[in-house]
Amino acid sequence: MHSSLLLERREQALGPGAELFYDDPVEIVRGEGCYLFDPSGRRYLDLYNNVPCVGHGNRAVAEAMAAQQATLNVHNRYLHEGIVTYAERLCALHHDGIESAVFCCTGTEANEVALAMARAVTGRAGIVCSDAAYHGNAGLVAALTEVGSGGQGPDAAIRGFPYPDCYRPLLPDASDDALCAAYLERVEEAIAELKRDGHGLAAFIVCSIFANEGLPRVPAGFLAAATELVHREGGLVIGDEVQCGFGRTGHWWGYEAMGFTPDIVVMGKPMGNGLPLAAAAAHRDHVAAFRRETDYFNTFASTPLQAAVGMTVLDEIERLALVGNAASTGAYLLDALQHRLAGAPGVGDIRGCGLFLAVEIVRDSASREPDPAAARQLANRFRAAGVLLGAAGVHGNVLKLRPPLVFSKADAEPFLEACDAIFGTNLER
Amino acid sequence: MHSSLLLERREQALGPGAELFYDDPVEIVRGEGCYLFDPSGRRYLDLYNNVPCVGHGNRAVAEAMAAQQATLNVHNRYLHEGIVTYAERLCALHHDGIESAVFCCTGTEANEVALAMARAVTGRAGIVCSDAAYHGNAGLVAALTEVGSGGQGPDAAIRGFPYPDCYRPLLPDASDDALCAAYLERVEEAIAELKRDGHGLAAFIVCSIFANEGLPRVPAGFLAAATELVHREGGLVIGDEVQCGFGRTGHWWGYEAMGFTPDIVVMGKPMGNGLPLAAAAAHRDHVAAFRRETDYFNTFASTPLQAAVGMTVLDEIERLALVGNAASTGAYLLDALQHRLAGAPGVGDIRGCGLFLAVEIVRDSASREPDPAAARQLANRFRAAGVLLGAAGVHGNVLKLRPPLVFSKADAEPFLEACDAIFGTNLER
Repeated sequence: MHSSLLLERREQALGPGAELFYDDPVEIVRGEGCYLFDPSGRRYLDLYNNVPCVGHGNRAVAEAMAAQQATLNVHNRYLHEGIVTYAERLCALHHDGIESAVFCCTGTEANEVALAMARAVTGRAGIVCSDAAYHGNAGLVAALTEVGSGGQGPDAAIRGFPYPDCYRPLLPDASDDALCAAYLERVEEAIAELKRDGHGLAAFIVCSIFANEGLPRVPAGFLAAATELVHREGGLVIGDEVQCGFGRTGHWWGYEAMGFTPDIVVMGKPMGNGLPLAAAAAHRDHVAAFRRETDYFNTFASTPLQAAVGMTVLDEIERLALVGNAASTGAYLLDALQHRLAGAPGVGDIRGCGLFLAVEIVRDSASREPDPAAARQLANRFRAAGVLLGAAGVHGNVLKLRPPLVFSKADAEPFLEACDAIFGTNLER
Repeated sequence: MHSSLLLERREQALGPGAELFYDDPVEIVRGEGCYLFDPSGRRYLDLYNNVPCVGHGNRAVAEAMAAQQATLNVHNRYLHEGIVTYAERLCALHHDGIESAVFCCTGTEANEVALAMARAVTGRAGIVCSDAAYHGNAGLVAALTEVGSGGQGPDAAIRGFPYPDCYRPLLPDASDDALCAAYLERVEEAIAELKRDGHGLAAFIVCSIFANEGLPRVPAGFLAAATELVHREGGLVIGDEVQCGFGRTGHWWGYEAMGFTPDIVVMGKPMGNGLPLAAAAAHRDHVAAFRRETDYFNTFASTPLQAAVGMTVLDEIERLALVGNAASTGAYLLDALQHRLAGAPGVGDIRGCGLFLAVEIVRDSASREPDPAAARQLANRFRAAGVLLGAAGVHGNVLKLRPPLVFSKADAEPFLEACDAIFGTNLER
């Protein structure tokens, strides 16, 4: 329950139109692990929030934050060991090509840095992204979002390709190999167009798991082959790990789950368990080219506070073995959902990796026609049943399951029970 | 002292070219009030950092941060009273026209929001800024910086005007009134050009005290008259308070010190004492137009953490009476500097308001020719003497004095002693 007075005050203080989830918004006052609590003490299972990856209310993070803030929190134009040590540890979690990091506050900023870096390194402007990409809400990265709607936004050097998807494929009834080739051909066309129009190729940027696109099943080998193609054309591959990094997929990085090796990795959201913290990391020479070209500086980034909190998040991921937990609990949940929901009316596909799962809601399983209204209704029904999840994907019809990584098999129970009630399927248990 | 090993590690981990202050960079491990400490325990008086406005290491802020992080820190699409109450309190600190706030992580983001808001409200694109403006490091706001260098950047709808300055005026030997009129005329020309080129006028954006320009003496009445002009032309006035807000000038807001009333205020840097926190605030209808037009959302903004920390910063500013302190200590310091340094070789002008003072370093006081090399040398000499300050301004020749607001008259002593030694002037005490 929430007070209508608070809703009114919010509309005045934040202005009308500040988004709220659910027809009946949830007022939250406290969080713990993968649960959120309203003012009456009612508990909600949080299947939505990826930011608090080591748990809502994680004490170690709060304590590290306070200790550092009470000691020192200042910009990065003085020497401070904290951010150096953190950058070293962060880069060491990636493949050898990732040596140096540029820190930012948000994923948007870090994606902007990555694109500027690719342009600085290659001396070319062209960017290829998927036609349902989301890499941020400002500047050049926001322009990427517009590719899907047919426009090229304010930046003429952006070209889209149809995102790879085995459920609604570019070629019907094609083999996986043929489908992969078809998508690659579209990437090739986008690159050719950029070259023909005089932009050349700077970067191919993807969310490593195509989260915004709806977490599609990607034809095997697509991203490795695309990487090879982009390298052959002299461009850099940017792996946007804002949503899929830090263990989410059951691997440290989404690109490991998807079998490719980006030249620039972009990290954000879960990185600071709620503290604004993001980074773009790459080969030292790439970062040097970026810094030479841009003189980039960010008051609130690379700070002792970011370092202390980011470090503690890594500690907690390791202490709680959350990468392995994402793999095993994610596999358990995927299996449970496939057993319970396969064939349920409106359920088109159930997929995902680690603790990032997707349930496609469709009008009927033969036509596979997306049903975003039903997905929204389901999200509202789950909310009423005490489970918080959201609808996403390019069609808005994909139920997105993405709990804090501390989510356990026991935590899955209330969700699975709610599934039984809401989808009405007690079959195949 | 710092270890050369740390320098090497930093160059590898952050990439070559990440900026460091001073020829001999300072390694900092701890801060307290307006002092910073290196690993050997050597104390530096901090005359540079405006972000930790309620003091380095402020305990109340650290405790509020930890308490909220341990309780709840989540995005703003659930109802939470904290950010609503904070927005209400923040808006109430401004004039009546400021009713609703859009929260962000950085001043860059908040300035972007302000510009997008002005464009949404007016339905026009044109932006007028000073020819030495700095409002941020990304996207459209970064384009504003390029106006000074003659280009218009990627956005064709930006026009610059020469920033108002009584020390190096547009008209030599003019009266204050004539000078004011001359600068206004240039604003008028910029607006006329935007209209002629089909952009129309959306916004006139200024740092309320022209901090990046070098904190010039502004002809009396200029900003009030410019505001009237902009309103007559149907545009909105954006007061960028990122540097001058929250008591810095001895008033709560720089626009109060400068005698004008902006339609949109942009706040940042000191707002969270180091936590990434910024906002653009305006009339409710303006914010509504912005939200309608953009669907703006920011994962890390409007959070319970931002609210708790922002609230505590306001508490501390009030508890420690820092607005009054900025006025009285600032006046004391300005007077002391004028007595000690007036006529010292290389000192061209000493000015400022509250705890934001500027000392112009020139080749000689007759020509007023900026001497950035001497300013840099002075900053290095002060650093060697245990006082941290920086050189700024469009010519890079202005020593910028901008300590945490907890700076007291007693704290001024080590700086004034260093001035005596460095400028060699013990006169007129």
